[in-house]
Amino acid sequence: MAKFMVLYEKPEDIEGFENYYFNTHMPLVQQLPNIIHASLTRVQRAQNTDLNLYLIVQLDFENIEMLHEALGSDAGQAVIEDAGQLTELYLHKPPIVTIGE
Amino acid sequence: MAKFMVLYEKPEDIEGFENYYFNTHMPLVQQLPNIIHASLTRVQRAQNTDLNLYLIVQLDFENIEMLHEALGSDAGQAVIEDAGQLTELYLHKPPIVTIGE
Repeated sequence: MAKFMVLYEKPEDIEGFENYYFNTHMPLVQQLPNIIHASLTRVQRAQNTDLNLYLIVQLDFENIEMLHEALGSDAGQAVIEDAGQLTELYLHKPPIVTIGE
Repeated sequence: MAKFMVLYEKPEDIEGFENYYFNTHMPLVQQLPNIIHASLTRVQRAQNTDLNLYLIVQLDFENIEMLHEALGSDAGQAVIEDAGQLTELYLHKPPIVTIGE
């Protein structure tokens, strides 16, 4: 199992972020190929960090090749471009992104 | 679904950490009640962070109450104590821990 994980810090404009995330960004994410499972976790408490963690989104793929295929697809490029837009509009800096297996 | 997530940075003594993690810490984690699903992800790449992320461990529970019950149990206390030992032996600082739903 390979995982693509995005850790968002708390945006200043929570309502704007949430609207954009759920109405614009997530529909693009849902068009990615190869996703086995997706989850979205609202962080209630974080310890041992200065990060003001807010939302953790995870996409599971069968393996790392399937993950890279998804990111490299047209749908993947649309997600990456829109993530830039989401960051520019609502975040101080890009969210932490990890890829692992 | 509630998630307990631990993000470990790369230890200096990888072999020592891995031995301790898999032979001592994980058996204690496996005794926690209420776990629905557990996953362990080896980070291959991280972006937009200075954290040298290495391992991400996740425990899924039906809800936040089940999660807190698990952490508050005798098995939970044993895990928390042993996490302190793991940190003292192999890490520069405690791993990031998040709780969310």
